[in-house]
Amino acid sequence: MNTGKNHKIVDCTVRDGGLVNNWDFSVDFVQYLYKCLNEAGIDYMEIGYKNSPKLLKGSESSGPWRSLKDDFLHDVIGEKQTTKLSALVDIGRVEVNDILPREKSLLDLIRVACYIQDVDEALKLVRQFHDRGYETTLNIMALSNVKKSHLVEAFKLISHSVVDVVYIVDSYGSLMPKDIRNLVKRFQKHLPNKRLGAHMHNNMQLGFANTLAAADNGVELLDCSVYGMGRAAGNCPTELLVAQLKNTNYSLRPVLDMIEKYMIPLRDIEEWGYLIPYMITGMLDEHPRSAMAFRNSSDKNMALQFYDMLTVPNVNS
Amino acid sequence: MNTGKNHKIVDCTVRDGGLVNNWDFSVDFVQYLYKCLNEAGIDYMEIGYKNSPKLLKGSESSGPWRSLKDDFLHDVIGEKQTTKLSALVDIGRVEVNDILPREKSLLDLIRVACYIQDVDEALKLVRQFHDRGYETTLNIMALSNVKKSHLVEAFKLISHSVVDVVYIVDSYGSLMPKDIRNLVKRFQKHLPNKRLGAHMHNNMQLGFANTLAAADNGVELLDCSVYGMGRAAGNCPTELLVAQLKNTNYSLRPVLDMIEKYMIPLRDIEEWGYLIPYMITGMLDEHPRSAMAFRNSSDKNMALQFYDMLTVPNVNS
Repeated sequence: MNTGKNHKIVDCTVRDGGLVNNWDFSVDFVQYLYKCLNEAGIDYMEIGYKNSPKLLKGSESSGPWRSLKDDFLHDVIGEKQTTKLSALVDIGRVEVNDILPREKSLLDLIRVACYIQDVDEALKLVRQFHDRGYETTLNIMALSNVKKSHLVEAFKLISHSVVDVVYIVDSYGSLMPKDIRNLVKRFQKHLPNKRLGAHMHNNMQLGFANTLAAADNGVELLDCSVYGMGRAAGNCPTELLVAQLKNTNYSLRPVLDMIEKYMIPLRDIEEWGYLIPYMITGMLDEHPRSAMAFRNSSDKNMALQFYDMLTVPNVNS
Repeated sequence: MNTGKNHKIVDCTVRDGGLVNNWDFSVDFVQYLYKCLNEAGIDYMEIGYKNSPKLLKGSESSGPWRSLKDDFLHDVIGEKQTTKLSALVDIGRVEVNDILPREKSLLDLIRVACYIQDVDEALKLVRQFHDRGYETTLNIMALSNVKKSHLVEAFKLISHSVVDVVYIVDSYGSLMPKDIRNLVKRFQKHLPNKRLGAHMHNNMQLGFANTLAAADNGVELLDCSVYGMGRAAGNCPTELLVAQLKNTNYSLRPVLDMIEKYMIPLRDIEEWGYLIPYMITGMLDEHPRSAMAFRNSSDKNMALQFYDMLTVPNVNS
């Protein structure tokens, strides 16, 4: 990685990892993570979603990081340190008036996730968060499935927007490093006035490699999570990104501290990472939901059965 | 990957995986693997070492794949199919007269592993195996630690040798895709008359990505093992390589069959893959032996303690 460039690390453990355990992280866990990320010099911690509980199904059974409340966040964080705080929102699930002006909030960055067809709606939200003083990103999901012509349409909208950073999101973990290089070049060509970010998944064991490919080609914001914790196959591991940036001001030791104290025990009771059903949905460029359901069934190790379900016509009919 | 190129897959499950379980694979396991690799269209199966038991410590407790005998191999394989058979030998551990002329052997390929300072000795062995009719490779281990000047010296010897294929081996799993690209270019420049191979380890979750980087830059023989089984962090997984080459004549389904039937149950009792101590030795460009010993101790999950052992001066004194 070109360590001379201005890379920034965005740790998504609580937000994306919450998709694994229904955001059932204790306050102790999140406080310790915040301490470790600060000590490690990580630039941003995405501490959850800022969606409205009223607009979410089943939110009453979820942990508090799924719909962050400002008072709660103040209690958890206490005195703010140097790692900035981020929250993600989804179109149709966020109540704009839940987002305080930045000077009254502990959050620094609001990220808006959307599919390609909703970029215009997403940019309307971005505008409002920008006007309230936040840094903003637009995270375009499932890019592996997007047609070039749709992307070019979206670029036109984005280039005229106020959004600070545009994310390349490999939601299905199906892209190869060469795909990432090509996507980054296309984004740079069409959005010369925007900074870029990358959020990769590990279905094909390429989360870290694809993040490196993005970074080497000039992508600035690099998403990751400690021990790779994230939906299904998980994300680029924070510890690998920090280890690779070892000649910078990042420190690996606090990340290993978090792994030893919390992540290794957590991995014993929650499941994420490279597993064959996730590899298969990644290879097929599909959402991992079928694989997640399969891993929750008694057949979870029947790799061949799952492959046939997804590839042999009528095997399920 | 440039699927138009002439890539060949070398599955090392039995040989490199044997370093995990002391080659304790049943004949049923190896026969089923041979069947699956044939069905998948894999080019080579490395079925073990051809070292002499007389020259190995503790070989009496190892499984038969650590010192293959020709009669035994005939019993296991029976009628030979299309996947070629390979064996690895180490300098100082092989008795040349144990290697039958190829027409009397089931083996097609003999690979000689060595460190950079032993390239001349290794090439003497290569010459003898070549003269007995075998395809040959020279596998230069621990390339991440080799000085450029030593490599240039070795290139001179190799370019005048009879060896068919020269391997880039990332023994410690410490190289990045860009390192692989640079190494491949250097090998191609100095050895224009040799075909190249790549053998990668997964300490930094880059086994597959580095193998892709090698393949995309013209490396022909690609090592891997089913479900990544290999010493410490393991290898590039065969299933990922086959999945990525899905537009070729390789088939994924038989590899998944092997994974479901044998590899997932085996992973429950033997350990390999991405684990923090292996990540740390990879990052530090060290042999994984300290990490393997640590994973065999009661402190095995003490990620921080292991990091301090290897990085803090005098922590162990």
